[in-house]
Amino acid sequence: MANSKYEYVKKFEVDDKLPPHNWIVLRIDGCHFHRFAADHMFEKPNDENALNLMNICAVSMLEHFPDVVFAYGVSDEYSFILKETTELYQRRASKILSLSVSYFTSVYVMKWKDFFPHKELREPPSFDGRVICYPRANIVRDYLAWRQVDCHINNQYNTCFWMLVKSGKTEREAQESLKGTLSKDKNELLFQHFSVNYDKLPAMFRKGSCVYVDKVEETVKLDYSGNPVKRLRKKVTVGHFDIISPKFWNEHPYILEEE
Amino acid sequence: MANSKYEYVKKFEVDDKLPPHNWIVLRIDGCHFHRFAADHMFEKPNDENALNLMNICAVSMLEHFPDVVFAYGVSDEYSFILKETTELYQRRASKILSLSVSYFTSVYVMKWKDFFPHKELREPPSFDGRVICYPRANIVRDYLAWRQVDCHINNQYNTCFWMLVKSGKTEREAQESLKGTLSKDKNELLFQHFSVNYDKLPAMFRKGSCVYVDKVEETVKLDYSGNPVKRLRKKVTVGHFDIISPKFWNEHPYILEEE
Amino acid sequence: MANSKYEYVKKFEVDDKLPPHNWIVLRIDGCHFHRFAADHMFEKPNDENALNLMNICAVSMLEHFPDVVFAYGVSDEYSFILKETTELYQRRASKILSLSVSYFTSVYVMKWKDFFPHKELREPPSFDGRVICYPRANIVRDYLAWRQVDCHINNQYNTCFWMLVKSGKTEREAQESLKGTLSKDKNELLFQHFSVNYDKLPAMFRKGSCVYVDKVEETVKLDYSGNPVKRLRKKVTVGHFDIISPKFWNEHPYILEEE
Amino acid sequence: MANSKYEYVKKFEVDDKLPPHNWIVLRIDGCHFHRFAADHMFEKPNDENALNLMNICAVSMLEHFPDVVFAYGVSDEYSFILKETTELYQRRASKILSLSVSYFTSVYVMKWKDFFPHKELREPPSFDGRVICYPRANIVRDYLAWRQVDCHINNQYNTCFWMLVKSGKTEREAQESLKGTLSKDKNELLFQHFSVNYDKLPAMFRKGSCVYVDKVEETVKLDYSGNPVKRLRKKVTVGHFDIISPKFWNEHPYILEEE
Repeated sequence: MANSKYEYVKKFEVDDKLPPHNWIVLRIDGCHFHRFAADHMFEKPNDENALNLMNICAVSMLEHFPDVVFAYGVSDEYSFILKETTELYQRRASKILSLSVSYFTSVYVMKWKDFFPHKELREPPSFDGRVICYPRANIVRDYLAWRQVDCHINNQYNTCFWMLVKSGKTEREAQESLKGTLSKDKNELLFQHFSVNYDKLPAMFRKGSCVYVDKVEETVKLDYSGNPVKRLRKKVTVGHFDIISPKFWNEHPYILEEE
Repeated sequence: MANSKYEYVKKFEVDDKLPPHNWIVLRIDGCHFHRFAADHMFEKPNDENALNLMNICAVSMLEHFPDVVFAYGVSDEYSFILKETTELYQRRASKILSLSVSYFTSVYVMKWKDFFPHKELREPPSFDGRVICYPRANIVRDYLAWRQVDCHINNQYNTCFWMLVKSGKTEREAQESLKGTLSKDKNELLFQHFSVNYDKLPAMFRKGSCVYVDKVEETVKLDYSGNPVKRLRKKVTVGHFDIISPKFWNEHPYILEEE
Repeated sequence: MANSKYEYVKKFEVDDKLPPHNWIVLRIDGCHFHRFAADHMFEKPNDENALNLMNICAVSMLEHFPDVVFAYGVSDEYSFILKETTELYQRRASKILSLSVSYFTSVYVMKWKDFFPHKELREPPSFDGRVICYPRANIVRDYLAWRQVDCHINNQYNTCFWMLVKSGKTEREAQESLKGTLSKDKNELLFQHFSVNYDKLPAMFRKGSCVYVDKVEETVKLDYSGNPVKRLRKKVTVGHFDIISPKFWNEHPYILEEE
Repeated sequence: MANSKYEYVKKFEVDDKLPPHNWIVLRIDGCHFHRFAADHMFEKPNDENALNLMNICAVSMLEHFPDVVFAYGVSDEYSFILKETTELYQRRASKILSLSVSYFTSVYVMKWKDFFPHKELREPPSFDGRVICYPRANIVRDYLAWRQVDCHINNQYNTCFWMLVKSGKTEREAQESLKGTLSKDKNELLFQHFSVNYDKLPAMFRKGSCVYVDKVEETVKLDYSGNPVKRLRKKVTVGHFDIISPKFWNEHPYILEEE
């Protein structure tokens, strides 16, 4: 039984190669994670274990897909930057999207028990994803700045909101009292009412998480004279930096280097 | 800190809505499952537990995404047919692709231990996916026929191949002795050398698996006169049918009904 | 001087093949024809010469591109239906779009003097175009009905509007007095004020123009007994039919026949 | 008669906006111009009038579409570069493609008689077109270099070929004697056999044509002291430059300036 009679159906598949010389950004986002967080009693406004689980998944991604040069995560969302010249799956959008979202999900479920040893998964967590092309490194930086500004705005709001709720307000009252407040008003509120210095909260909450390949110098051995022999080792690293201002990028120029 | 300065980066996202009035086929495929099967010592040529795990994932898909009207699976591959008029995620290709592949993967990892209670997952399984539009129901049937013919060709070959290997040949010798053989030669080989009647092998191996919503009549209660009160109940069902010939489709005309 | 160093730039060209088994509709539309009509003093609301020029261009299109099975034109707009199975330019959208718009434009300029012997072209006329895929013949019929309903609505309005203007109202007054009127109000207005029976106006104005390949019987010669020998001849034909109701399609079933 | 019943057909139109911050290249190419050139007895290997007609069309394009910052033409082909930030037709590919090809064609037919006063157009000339996105100015320069290298290779070959044919060889013999020759062999052949110094042939033939907006200084008037008052005037200019080496671009840095 040859298959030629039906093979014409393959012609409906479309060529979805992404254009060359563009940076590829893959953004993954938890599906209905508001409810998922409630079902699994995540701490509010930030659950450290849940964030660390996201981060370990991102680290696995960089190890599994070496063309991912940088990742930035906040809440239930993670963005992965594929280098401009990547030929991963010949740059086919569906392949890149499906395989990376699938891998991320798989690691998330497998590592769950390491971060929540006493909580069973009550439903299958899932993530949506999208793939975006950016023609220049400076626009990729603007993309990352966009996500980090969002992180700041949301985290400051949520910190206030949950402080108010935990202090006895209803969710509606908390919402009302934050309406129209500016950034500095929120900082003031935290400081005056709750003696919280926003800038002293954990950087992971305020800045989100960056994952990238760092080049660290390490001593391999001592030579005959007893002097250390060193080499650069690549190491997937998690940090919580300001990626809006140029400092981090100036210190790691190789990450978004253009050909 | 308003975010307006960086929001222009959103304009790089593309509208990827699939055209209306087309059937949407989503095909999921295990990534490097040849190696994954070896690492987890799947039985050859067919591992019943592995197939049942795939099937249970497909059942979950139909329960989770009610617009999936039919699914067909073979080996580490599954095709899902979304009805022509579906408005799932406003027909956005990336959403449909990423969320369904992610959900499938999530269920696969969560249910693993139910099917392999004595085997730990040694690596994160992942699946690639693609989304294809078909303009008419008869072409969707040709698509499914294409997959089932493929199932038949591969399974017949693999059955012979592994019989030969288990009988003492090397993989290379097995491959050599099957080169150029026709379908009936392979059946003959199985029968003459191994007393195997191919048509008596489990239908799941020979036909693959169909998952669909069946309408089953059930007795709800008895009425005052003692006569049964019946109603149609929808039930996600797994079967192993011939979906190339018209019989199944004639019996289930509602599955691929066009508007 | 070999060219290999720069040839990588070709990789930026995208594959834009239209999906198989879809009807391809090409719609061409005059660019700034409101102004173009004024500059060339077209008669209002309908300039018969301008419409006939459009029609002759459409006839040329059907002769030049044999896979165009039907065309429908109204005002400065023309839609061309390419048969479902066409392999014109391997179904590449850019090729189909650019070459057909270019050919149409070329004929328009070349034939201008045949229809306007006493008017010089004062500026280069140009047309925009778009290409749309329709999965089924009945949807193509709905597409054509959509254009013909539009023709009717616009023509009825314009007929009233220009009658009012020619009778002494300003354009603004004409507009005002038509605001909110229904179809039958407009017919009544034409009849009461201008003794015009709308249904007696030329069909080309009311129905637009259809161009298609008709199969006409013709007598080739007489045979020995003096009986006529007939054959079917294909002939590109222009007509002004109702293409909303089924009559025309029932009489010409071969035009939108599906494979 | 409202049109709402059929308006659903509009949903089949696709959004084809080109990504922001990319240079847009539109390349137009004569359709069957080999035959068209023969039918209209164009001179071989280069018909000056035909090239000048192409150039005048390109000049019209730059005047009509101010976002075209540069055009490069050779033979029956022209490339137009739209500036990176153009919002022409909201960057919709079909609009840009169809309207520019249509406009070019229209001008070509209208201006024909100015360049060929004694030749009637025997058939409608038409052009295909395609639209390509380039993410960076240096890649646009590579694109233009690709076209100019092509111009050089083809023109040198054609010059030799037609010299040989005009000297009495058949087209086949001419082809045979050029097989495998290098660039310097061809120059040698021209010089030895035909006393032609290739580098002295008209630049338009060897280099193709560049059309761009030049900024020329002009004296507007004299001021009170009798000193000239100057201003920069924009002027669409045709030239025949080397656009592979950096000289031209260094002298006109504003043409491909990135935001």
